[in-house]
Amino acid sequence: MNSKRVEVELGARSYPIFISEDFQLENFEQTIGQRRFYVITDSHVAPLYGDQLSVLPNRLGQSIVPAGESSKSLQQAEIIYGDLIRAKADRKTVIVALGGGVVGDLAGFIASTYMRGVPFVQMPTSLLAMVDSSVGGKVAVNHPLGKNMIGHFYQPESVLMATSVLKTLPQRELQAGMAEVIKYGIIMDAEFFAWLEQNVEKLLALDPQAIASTLEKSVCCKAQVVGEDEKEGGVRATLNLGHTFGHAEEVLAGYGRVLHGEAVAAGMVAAMATSVALGQASEDDLRRCRALILKFKLPITLTQSHRQTEFWTAMEGDKKSLSGVVNFVLSRGIGGCDLPKAIQRTFIENVLTSLR
Amino acid sequence: MNSKRVEVELGARSYPIFISEDFQLENFEQTIGQRRFYVITDSHVAPLYGDQLSVLPNRLGQSIVPAGESSKSLQQAEIIYGDLIRAKADRKTVIVALGGGVVGDLAGFIASTYMRGVPFVQMPTSLLAMVDSSVGGKVAVNHPLGKNMIGHFYQPESVLMATSVLKTLPQRELQAGMAEVIKYGIIMDAEFFAWLEQNVEKLLALDPQAIASTLEKSVCCKAQVVGEDEKEGGVRATLNLGHTFGHAEEVLAGYGRVLHGEAVAAGMVAAMATSVALGQASEDDLRRCRALILKFKLPITLTQSHRQTEFWTAMEGDKKSLSGVVNFVLSRGIGGCDLPKAIQRTFIENVLTSLR
Repeated sequence: MNSKRVEVELGARSYPIFISEDFQLENFEQTIGQRRFYVITDSHVAPLYGDQLSVLPNRLGQSIVPAGESSKSLQQAEIIYGDLIRAKADRKTVIVALGGGVVGDLAGFIASTYMRGVPFVQMPTSLLAMVDSSVGGKVAVNHPLGKNMIGHFYQPESVLMATSVLKTLPQRELQAGMAEVIKYGIIMDAEFFAWLEQNVEKLLALDPQAIASTLEKSVCCKAQVVGEDEKEGGVRATLNLGHTFGHAEEVLAGYGRVLHGEAVAAGMVAAMATSVALGQASEDDLRRCRALILKFKLPITLTQSHRQTEFWTAMEGDKKSLSGVVNFVLSRGIGGCDLPKAIQRTFIENVLTSLR
Repeated sequence: MNSKRVEVELGARSYPIFISEDFQLENFEQTIGQRRFYVITDSHVAPLYGDQLSVLPNRLGQSIVPAGESSKSLQQAEIIYGDLIRAKADRKTVIVALGGGVVGDLAGFIASTYMRGVPFVQMPTSLLAMVDSSVGGKVAVNHPLGKNMIGHFYQPESVLMATSVLKTLPQRELQAGMAEVIKYGIIMDAEFFAWLEQNVEKLLALDPQAIASTLEKSVCCKAQVVGEDEKEGGVRATLNLGHTFGHAEEVLAGYGRVLHGEAVAAGMVAAMATSVALGQASEDDLRRCRALILKFKLPITLTQSHRQTEFWTAMEGDKKSLSGVVNFVLSRGIGGCDLPKAIQRTFIENVLTSLR
C-alpha cells in the first residue's frame, strides 16, 4: 500500500495527513526537516512504537505519561513543561504526539502553550484519534469539574497515520472508534454509510485496504468541515451529532466506565430518534443506524437516561451549551444534518423514554 | 480630559485602547454590549476599584487572586477555571482583567484557554501594565523553572485605562513602569525621549496631562510594533531591549527582590553600553540614557553581573534564546535599534565589567 495524502485546507495553516501501512520515516523527516523534536507518548504506546522515533538523530527527548484519561490534566502538563525546559526545548522544537486521543490532546495543549506556541505533529495510534481527534486542531486538558474545559484551537503541521498500529489496539477501542466513523456517514455522506454497511466484517478484521479507505474517507469528511469552520462558529458543530447525549452518559456513568465512542454511539441513536420524532428523518434511517451500530458491537441505549434530572443537568453542563440552553445536532436523514438547535426538555425526555 | 483612543491594527483582531482620567463605563459597555462578563482581579485592586464594575447588571462574578507574581501559576489558573465553571461562564462570557501585569497575564491566559478561548478585556491598573503588558496580546503564567513559559498570543477586544488609578500605585512601581516608557524612546522615538527628559518632574508628580500623553505615546509605539509583527517573528523582538540582561538580573536576584522595570532599566544601560562598544551608538547616547533612568530613580547597574557564569547561564535560559545562543537587541543611537543578534560572551562580559 502506498502512502495516501489528504490535505486540510486552512490557508496559511493548511497541513497534510499521511496514511500508510507503517509509519513512514520519510514523511516524518519531510515534516521535521533539520529541526529538533520532542516526543510525548504514554505507557502503553512507548514500548510498542517509541523505538521508531528514537533512532532519529534530531530527537531531543521523550516524556511518557501514564496511559488513560487522568493524564489529560494541568498537573501532568506542568510536569512535561518541566521536562521540556530541562531538555532545553526552544521555540523551534517540534512537539510530536505519539499515541491516542489523550496523548494528542495533551501534547497539543502543551505545544499550543509552551513558550507561547511551538510546532506540533500528530502520530495517532488509536482509531478514534486517527478519524477524529488528531485532525482539526482541537487540543485540551480536563478540569476536575469538566472535560476538555481548558484548551485551544491549534493545528498540527502534519498528521502521520499507520494502519498497522491498529493491530495492537484492544478490540473494544477499535469498535468505539467506529462510532465517529459512522457519524461521518450519518451527518454528511450517505454513500459512505452504505459502504460501511457492506464492510463491517472486513473492518473488524482490520483488512488493510478497508481500514485505509475508512481512514481516508473519515479524515476527508473531517478536513472538509474543519476547512469550512475552523473554530466551530457554524458547520463544525455538526460533528457533535450524538455528543450532547453522549457527554451526559459519560459523566453519569463515570469517566472511563463507558468509552467516548460507546457513549457517542448510543447518543447518535437518541439524536436520530429525536429527528424521527420531529418528522425530519425516517424510521428506516433510525433502523439502519441502530443496525450498523450494533454490527460494530456498540451500545444503542443510554444506560443513564432514566436519571432524568441528572441527565438533563449533565447535558446543560456540556460546554457546547450556552447559558443553560441545551443544543442538539439532528439528522435530516442519513447523509444530512442541521446545525445544533435548542429542543424542549420534555420533548427530549419523551424520546429517551421511548428508547428504553 | 476627554477619552483618547488608540487603535491596534491587526486585521480582524484589531482593537481600541481607551485612555481617560477615570474608567468610563460607556466605553466598557460599548465593548461588552449585552454579553455577560466575569472579573479577575487581585487582593490589592479589588478593594480600590472592584466596585466600579460590580454595579453593572451583566457581571456574572469575580475572582480575587492574592496580589503578587506567585498568582501567575497553573495552580491559580485551575482555581479560576473552577470558579468560571461554577458561575456557568460559557463561550460568550467576556473575561475582564482588572489589575496590573500579573492579573492581565493570568486572566489573559485563562481567557485564551477557557473552553478553547473566550473574549477578553484589559483594564490595567499599573503603569507597567498600561504601557506594556496590556497591549499586544502576550499572555502567560509562570512555570517553577521559568517565567512566562506557558502562554499564548491572545489579543483583547479592548483595553481601558484610567490615569487616576496611578495615584494609588506605590511610587516604586510607578518608577519601574517608566523603564518601559523610556525604552520606547530609545528604540524608536528620539523626540519622545527628549520630551521625557523635559517632563520627569511632571510625570513623577502624576500630572494628568503629562501622564495621558505618555500613555498615548507609549501605546502608539507598542501598537505600531505589534501591528507589524504580532507573533514576534521580527521587529517585535526589539521591544526586548535590555530584557536579556534584565531577565538574568531578575533570576539571580530572586524574583520579587528587583522589579521587572528596575531590571530592565539596568539592562538597557548594559545594552546601550554594548552598542557603544560596538561603535553603533555614541557616548552621549549612553550618558543621556543613564541620566534619564537615574532621574526616574531607577538602577543603572546590574547588581548580579559579577556572578559571570551564572549570569551568562541565566541569559541562555531566557526563552528568547534559541538553542543556547544568546541574542541581544542593540541601539543604533537613541531612537533606533537593531533586531536581536548573537554577541560573543567575552565581549559582553568585558562591557559588563566596565560598567561595575
